[in-house]
Amino acid sequence: MCELLGMSANVPTDICFSFKGLAKRGGANGPHKDGWGMTFYEGKGCRTFKDPQPCSFSPIAKMLEDYPIKSELVVAHIRQANRGKIALENTHPFTRELWGKNWTFAHNGQLTDYQNLDIGCYQPIGETDSEYAFCYILYRLRQKYANEPNDWIEVFHFVKLCADELKQLGVFNLLFSDGQYLFVYCSTNLYWITRRSPFGKATLIDEDVEVDFQQHTTPNDIVSVVATNPLTSNETWQKIAPGQAHLFKHGEKIF
Amino acid sequence: MCELLGMSANVPTDICFSFKGLAKRGGANGPHKDGWGMTFYEGKGCRTFKDPQPCSFSPIAKMLEDYPIKSELVVAHIRQANRGKIALENTHPFTRELWGKNWTFAHNGQLTDYQNLDIGCYQPIGETDSEYAFCYILYRLRQKYANEPNDWIEVFHFVKLCADELKQLGVFNLLFSDGQYLFVYCSTNLYWITRRSPFGKATLIDEDVEVDFQQHTTPNDIVSVVATNPLTSNETWQKIAPGQAHLFKHGEKIF
Repeated sequence: MCELLGMSANVPTDICFSFKGLAKRGGANGPHKDGWGMTFYEGKGCRTFKDPQPCSFSPIAKMLEDYPIKSELVVAHIRQANRGKIALENTHPFTRELWGKNWTFAHNGQLTDYQNLDIGCYQPIGETDSEYAFCYILYRLRQKYANEPNDWIEVFHFVKLCADELKQLGVFNLLFSDGQYLFVYCSTNLYWITRRSPFGKATLIDEDVEVDFQQHTTPNDIVSVVATNPLTSNETWQKIAPGQAHLFKHGEKIF
Repeated sequence: MCELLGMSANVPTDICFSFKGLAKRGGANGPHKDGWGMTFYEGKGCRTFKDPQPCSFSPIAKMLEDYPIKSELVVAHIRQANRGKIALENTHPFTRELWGKNWTFAHNGQLTDYQNLDIGCYQPIGETDSEYAFCYILYRLRQKYANEPNDWIEVFHFVKLCADELKQLGVFNLLFSDGQYLFVYCSTNLYWITRRSPFGKATLIDEDVEVDFQQHTTPNDIVSVVATNPLTSNETWQKIAPGQAHLFKHGEKIF
């Protein structure tokens, strides 16, 4: 299985602390040695850093642990390959354009019989069930909304229906975003936490690192983090029930 | 104007030396302070590093100067903004999927009256004339070839016709690639060089750095580099004539 990490915030926030914990699971403390990737949104633009090499030995990951890129939305993934060889084209997150926006997708799990799903003109580049499922969701969205929709909450309720279908084909934990909304779907394991004032201290589970969020925030900051497993030992993470979805915007859970 | 850099090689090759020269032009020696980006292909996959900050002060650029990512095809761009604000969504190169392949586009120049071009279902994410032109070429390709074509040389001759049209709208120097072929089109300034055995020494124009390619190559290596201006002072770069296109594959110029 892979590890997912997502962040939604109301102010540009760096993810160095959380990524430091996650990165340890990429080859050092965990079996997730088959590549990793992280997408940062900054406005309508986004940039993805990825490496088919283990996260814990990657110079790119090292740079990102130390270089505080400020973003309001982050999607990260550490891979343990099941379908598709270890290669850059099979490394999450995947990003494609729809309605003039960058959509990003990261999946934890494994699907069977997914090749029969109709994906229309969307073609996967790599060999993963994940990218195929991404194409499926984009195709369903484009079928339902020929032009950019107005009601984004309705859109993400529709994405939940697609995720429910995909969950029938196997394990399907999902992070999905357009840079403004972070949609998360739990099939087996996914936790979330919202940090807001008064901020406290947090200690990573995977590494002997503590951060005092109060020193890095203002009283108005709201930051939600979603992860396959809790990243800190002294905070209360909420477990998402299987088959349940949440939507985050500007750091707040809105459903 | 911006600066373009492309590389095509028959073996995975790092671009650290050339990028070191180019990076100096991104804010230190040149006016190209409005962001930069570099796309590395590795098989069917690719990854793009980009930053809306000046290249010469970017921690990401610094990492790439020192971390030899081996790639058979690279497309890089340093931006001097004209159309579109300084922002990640306006930072080249742009990459989108067509026929199950990653297509990458970087443009130097400026177009007028491009908004009337029909781009069908392709929508730009940012505000640049460049991304609009990319959408136009992809739309024309999809119109002409509903499915993946067989004759790639014919495809790139068709891309040349599209580039000829776009050149009517302004300055249009172009790098365009699917990871296997590097198509380059000159509107005003573009130079190329092919390095092969016996390899010699080369000295950067922009920085006091010399490399002895013989120490980094085997006798079978063939590497072509394309750039807006020659990067080295002691080699002979070929100038491409305005309105002329070249196609590189595995390091060789094939037209």
